[in-house]
Amino acid sequence: MARQQNVGAEQWQQWAEACLRALDFSEADARCLASSLAQTSLWGIDSHGIARLPHYLNRVVHGSILARPDIRIERSGPATAQAHGGQGHGIVVAHRANAAALELAREAGVGAVGVSNSSHCGAIGLYTRAAAREGLIGIGFTHSDAIAAPFGGRQPYFGTNPVSFAFPRQGGEPLCLDMATTSIPWNRVVNARRDGTALPAGVALDAEGRGATDAARVRALTPLGGEYGHKGYGLAMMVELLCGPLNGNPYGPHIGPMYEQLERARELGAFFIVIDPARFAGGAALAAVVAGMAAELAAQPGSPRAPGDPELAAQAQRQAWGIPVPPALKAEMAEWSGRLGQPLPPFLPPRGEA
Amino acid sequence: MARQQNVGAEQWQQWAEACLRALDFSEADARCLASSLAQTSLWGIDSHGIARLPHYLNRVVHGSILARPDIRIERSGPATAQAHGGQGHGIVVAHRANAAALELAREAGVGAVGVSNSSHCGAIGLYTRAAAREGLIGIGFTHSDAIAAPFGGRQPYFGTNPVSFAFPRQGGEPLCLDMATTSIPWNRVVNARRDGTALPAGVALDAEGRGATDAARVRALTPLGGEYGHKGYGLAMMVELLCGPLNGNPYGPHIGPMYEQLERARELGAFFIVIDPARFAGGAALAAVVAGMAAELAAQPGSPRAPGDPELAAQAQRQAWGIPVPPALKAEMAEWSGRLGQPLPPFLPPRGEA
Repeated sequence: MARQQNVGAEQWQQWAEACLRALDFSEADARCLASSLAQTSLWGIDSHGIARLPHYLNRVVHGSILARPDIRIERSGPATAQAHGGQGHGIVVAHRANAAALELAREAGVGAVGVSNSSHCGAIGLYTRAAAREGLIGIGFTHSDAIAAPFGGRQPYFGTNPVSFAFPRQGGEPLCLDMATTSIPWNRVVNARRDGTALPAGVALDAEGRGATDAARVRALTPLGGEYGHKGYGLAMMVELLCGPLNGNPYGPHIGPMYEQLERARELGAFFIVIDPARFAGGAALAAVVAGMAAELAAQPGSPRAPGDPELAAQAQRQAWGIPVPPALKAEMAEWSGRLGQPLPPFLPPRGEA
Repeated sequence: MARQQNVGAEQWQQWAEACLRALDFSEADARCLASSLAQTSLWGIDSHGIARLPHYLNRVVHGSILARPDIRIERSGPATAQAHGGQGHGIVVAHRANAAALELAREAGVGAVGVSNSSHCGAIGLYTRAAAREGLIGIGFTHSDAIAAPFGGRQPYFGTNPVSFAFPRQGGEPLCLDMATTSIPWNRVVNARRDGTALPAGVALDAEGRGATDAARVRALTPLGGEYGHKGYGLAMMVELLCGPLNGNPYGPHIGPMYEQLERARELGAFFIVIDPARFAGGAALAAVVAGMAAELAAQPGSPRAPGDPELAAQAQRQAWGIPVPPALKAEMAEWSGRLGQPLPPFLPPRGEA
């Protein structure tokens, strides 16, 4: 069996940009997409990082993601806008929509931007962190095709519908929560199928609605909360309404599947709310209080981790050692290198991570 | 042992208003507070309904909740405002702040209002539903004193920090999620202590950080998610930052306790975001799509409940049969009737509910 190797984030990004340019992406959009995926993998979020590029390239080739989309940001009021994604790549569209929300927040104190007719936008924490790095509070939501069973239900209905919040932190990276409203994200199932590994118990159902750990048999995830899964399910529903129906997009089972029907546009949405702390009584001190609270929490009995701590730890390690590339992913990369005439990036021996 | 009786919502409300008026609340504020608590109990949310009035009255008598607060709504931009609660009752302050957010949303498309120097604001779904009844999308957050252990921690740090979202639903009540970010709300522990009942397993810790079901021994709740409780914990932290530090309020363990130090002002906050669907591409059809989605979900295998369904079922029953009053609560009501010279409302024999 082939061994896993690593790839340097910059080397991978150059390769990805070359592949996207070969498929007619603009230089700016290729960089935006490739750097976002590299960053996500540096955070250790393998479900949403470099592993997804082959799929995205495949959708571009099949015509359901446009390399040169007509993205329009239509302002609809002093603090709102609708971003029409023009069937572009979801990461490119979401960065544009989120940037508009930042601008609105600076003007009006809060900005809300909905996204329509887009595609999978990767890790939603990319956008909330971008707001927090500018001293603003980022809130983001996105949805996907039916993969989570309702609480008490047996078949998929909503996506894993993540929510993210990020706050500026004085002297450090933003404090960022980025969580699926299921116990695990669907792309962990995809990766487990690719790598032949098992899932934890209690997080997924088979085709008959029974608990399952064999990734090949899994047909639905269960909502966050276990016995109190009505809460994860309720959150998923609220995220769905903000991302789907509010923007005129389809919802739940009416959304085309991510990994099938590759010619069909995804028609996915997202929703971004950005808040300017300066408009509130504690705004001036907020970033310092965030840093103080995080430090106080880390010193509690049991040393609880803060949201985002694992991402920052992974980033420090992967910047030094590279991003792990499982054999199946390396094979996909080699295939695209061949198809697009772009030489593979150099691979490094694996270090540290299994 | 005394048996539980029921009380009619209107009769209870009249009694509560008379008690509040006797403590110098204005007619409007007494009605606002009493009707909110009666409505919450009609929804079946016994943790946040009429059972809390004796405690609130006690805080008024001890001077930490002011009957005649100077509540100021200070506009800070085209879409934002800071509500200074003036140490008023949290429910009165929150209704005013939320009304300001509705007004801002109508003007700017989205409105965000933070609350400072307030007190316990009851069920946060009161406010989001108020927005949804006006055709808007309501999002609300509030916090409380330290009662939930961090994921991986052993001692309380955050409150049960609930989040709520409500959407307008054509031909029906708003679709509303109102959830604590712990598996159960703290007031269920308070009621279990009062009534001598046990808690479910896996939701609470004792003073040493071990799992506990005896309400008398419980010192902390665990975050929503069980094994994936880093998500409930992360949500609680984000809610805390929006409600506490952003508004210049204290946070977590620095907040005065609800049921002790009755002379000490709570200095609690809240945060309301209201969105006007008309500013987004799917806004015109939203309420109809919400109704259609809820109906489609109810017809799924397993007949999953939607968020808010239990509340609507409880309301239909309690409007007919009255609100249950456990013996210990009736004794508290009798004591306040005596102290304030207000005759008790008529009680009804118990029906239907245990």
